[in-house]
Amino acid sequence: MQVIEGGVTAAKGFEAAAAAAGIKYQDRTDMALIYSTKPCKVAGTFTTNRVKAAPVKWDREIVEKQLKSQAVVVNSGIANACTGAEGMAYCAQTAEETAKVLGVEAESVLVASTGVIGMQLPMEKITKGISQLAKERKSDLTSGTQAAQAIMTTDTKKKEAAVTVEIGDTLVTIGGMAKGSGMIHPNMCTMLAFITTDARISKKALQAALSTDVEDTYNMISVDGDTSTNDTVLLLANGMAGNEKIRYGTREYEAFKEALHYVNESLAKEMAGDGEGATALFEAKIIGADTKAQAKTLAKSIVCSNLTKAAIAGHDANWGRILCAMGYSGAEFDPEKVDLYFESEAGRLQIIENGTALDYSEEKAAEILSQPKVTVIADIKEGDVEAAAWGCDLTHEYITINADYRS
Amino acid sequence: MQVIEGGVTAAKGFEAAAAAAGIKYQDRTDMALIYSTKPCKVAGTFTTNRVKAAPVKWDREIVEKQLKSQAVVVNSGIANACTGAEGMAYCAQTAEETAKVLGVEAESVLVASTGVIGMQLPMEKITKGISQLAKERKSDLTSGTQAAQAIMTTDTKKKEAAVTVEIGDTLVTIGGMAKGSGMIHPNMCTMLAFITTDARISKKALQAALSTDVEDTYNMISVDGDTSTNDTVLLLANGMAGNEKIRYGTREYEAFKEALHYVNESLAKEMAGDGEGATALFEAKIIGADTKAQAKTLAKSIVCSNLTKAAIAGHDANWGRILCAMGYSGAEFDPEKVDLYFESEAGRLQIIENGTALDYSEEKAAEILSQPKVTVIADIKEGDVEAAAWGCDLTHEYITINADYRS
Repeated sequence: MQVIEGGVTAAKGFEAAAAAAGIKYQDRTDMALIYSTKPCKVAGTFTTNRVKAAPVKWDREIVEKQLKSQAVVVNSGIANACTGAEGMAYCAQTAEETAKVLGVEAESVLVASTGVIGMQLPMEKITKGISQLAKERKSDLTSGTQAAQAIMTTDTKKKEAAVTVEIGDTLVTIGGMAKGSGMIHPNMCTMLAFITTDARISKKALQAALSTDVEDTYNMISVDGDTSTNDTVLLLANGMAGNEKIRYGTREYEAFKEALHYVNESLAKEMAGDGEGATALFEAKIIGADTKAQAKTLAKSIVCSNLTKAAIAGHDANWGRILCAMGYSGAEFDPEKVDLYFESEAGRLQIIENGTALDYSEEKAAEILSQPKVTVIADIKEGDVEAAAWGCDLTHEYITINADYRS
Repeated sequence: MQVIEGGVTAAKGFEAAAAAAGIKYQDRTDMALIYSTKPCKVAGTFTTNRVKAAPVKWDREIVEKQLKSQAVVVNSGIANACTGAEGMAYCAQTAEETAKVLGVEAESVLVASTGVIGMQLPMEKITKGISQLAKERKSDLTSGTQAAQAIMTTDTKKKEAAVTVEIGDTLVTIGGMAKGSGMIHPNMCTMLAFITTDARISKKALQAALSTDVEDTYNMISVDGDTSTNDTVLLLANGMAGNEKIRYGTREYEAFKEALHYVNESLAKEMAGDGEGATALFEAKIIGADTKAQAKTLAKSIVCSNLTKAAIAGHDANWGRILCAMGYSGAEFDPEKVDLYFESEAGRLQIIENGTALDYSEEKAAEILSQPKVTVIADIKEGDVEAAAWGCDLTHEYITINADYRS
């Protein structure tokens, strides 16, 4: 596996474009298109929120019916959630307009939205945006990057990742883009991720690879504990690499999954580190666990703790909050066996041993915690299983962004 | 039932005192004592956090062994959590010193702590504080209020409540004090509540009344989602009212429970409204529910949502966040049947009907949301069960308090 430049246009046969449709923002692009010159198999995972946005319902049906897909159209101004039958009709209309200008079937167009809940889409602007996207789509890396920029809301950085991997003796490419910043969502809505690949792969293998990997990547990040109505991950495969078809459970499947994992984990960590108002990516690693489920529950609880996140913002080695968050996670462990370490590019420092504090240097701890990526490692000394979760610090800027998001 | 002035000294035979022991704060009282002239039956509920502070373990044993209790000694500087065997010994020593100066058994002294996790108690200061408390204890209402002030950490207001209720033809008093601001804790630790009553009541009835009522009061508040290592509610009954003994399941039990509920709910709401950095008490009411569990899950999810709390801070009628928080709560309901209202002393306004927005006045909504107590009411139209939860808004001040709490 090799990490390469690029995003959704890295794989063969994929094109992308961005447009400034003026849906919410007046000074930037706010619509994006991904297009494949050949129809794709598509796998998807969606929000578990009982309140689901119209595009989530639309895409889920396409994925479940195993329809082939050739395009994804996204807007980053309005979420099209809690918009009733009218919102559903606008979603269908968005797919129909896109299908018309691209000369494909409406049922092959996936739709995604992010932004304010409860407002209806301005269809005239959307329609104009779609025409422009269709006209300007290109297969170069720059077009992929422009699309990654157009789907941002309160993100401060565009998020792309791509790798190549040998399947048999054929080089397959997987690339993706995402916007943040949480399955546990940052803003109003939404976390969106779109992955493209030119791999030939069975529908079963494609969905299995995505569904299992989402559990270890996107589902292990948190910005604020609020699960969006629009969360969507789509994985499109057009088969244009020409490899022998990847089947579920084979060695080739494992290689594909490993490459996909790299792209997913990269995008997930970028989202966590770019959480609203964040100044640091905050990683929690549980080691010495007995089971994966236990390790994941403990790790997730740490990165979800408001108090821990506020302490990270203050570069304060307030380890009591971390042990406390592990304690209420619901997972079993013995607090009196826990060793805890802080780690970053400034070094590594043990803070507690067997549940009580060592005589560590607060100064050194503060230095470690002042870096842009901070890791806490908790060894619970029960076995050899590990898991990680990713979040960010909780800052004044988060409040500023969210106390008045709609205006 | 009648609401009266006072707190822990409102009931017959209870005395209180406060002392400035200099444990953490140098310019205020930080230790409190509650003393009953007669031994009390005692009921308690404690944190479910797997990491439990030393005083929680100490008190739980007294409650479980059904020992009689005559005193509660509290410090508000250091939590005595994650302090190992040394911390447990200091906790026992605190009880022994208190017992010695009061002339009672060590096993009749309940201990509570709140403050920083992981530090050991300065026993010399504690011992001096205990002597002072024992000397200065009095049964007047002012002494109760001074005790309520001494247990505060980041609380901005002392929290007291008291009622009288007729049991048979005897007047029984229940009074209490608490510090905030969450079962879901505000600071580092802790929520503490101490209730005293002169009722004669069986141990079974006393514990049952407390355990069931805690579910509807303290367990329905949230400040930041972090459950403390020290959460403790103690209910002491000395029987000095001389009423016929209250037994579990009788009409008198129900009357006692109703009066206890008033005290608990008052203290719980005061804690929520005085959450760290809070400018408003935020109440979520679910009406038209099918079951109590469903209503409680939905209400709690709303007051726990960071995004909703930030919107309340901004007086922003961002109802999409509320529906979103209901959606990920895990409780079943039909989003397309929900009616939503905002209510405060500035009026009441319907915002959505059957899951979609009405053409409401944003100006009026902002006015309603600018009050010190704000209620959101969601009618899910399935039945006639209701439940409420209480939280607060999420402000810049919360970050300021928690980004550097220890220093």
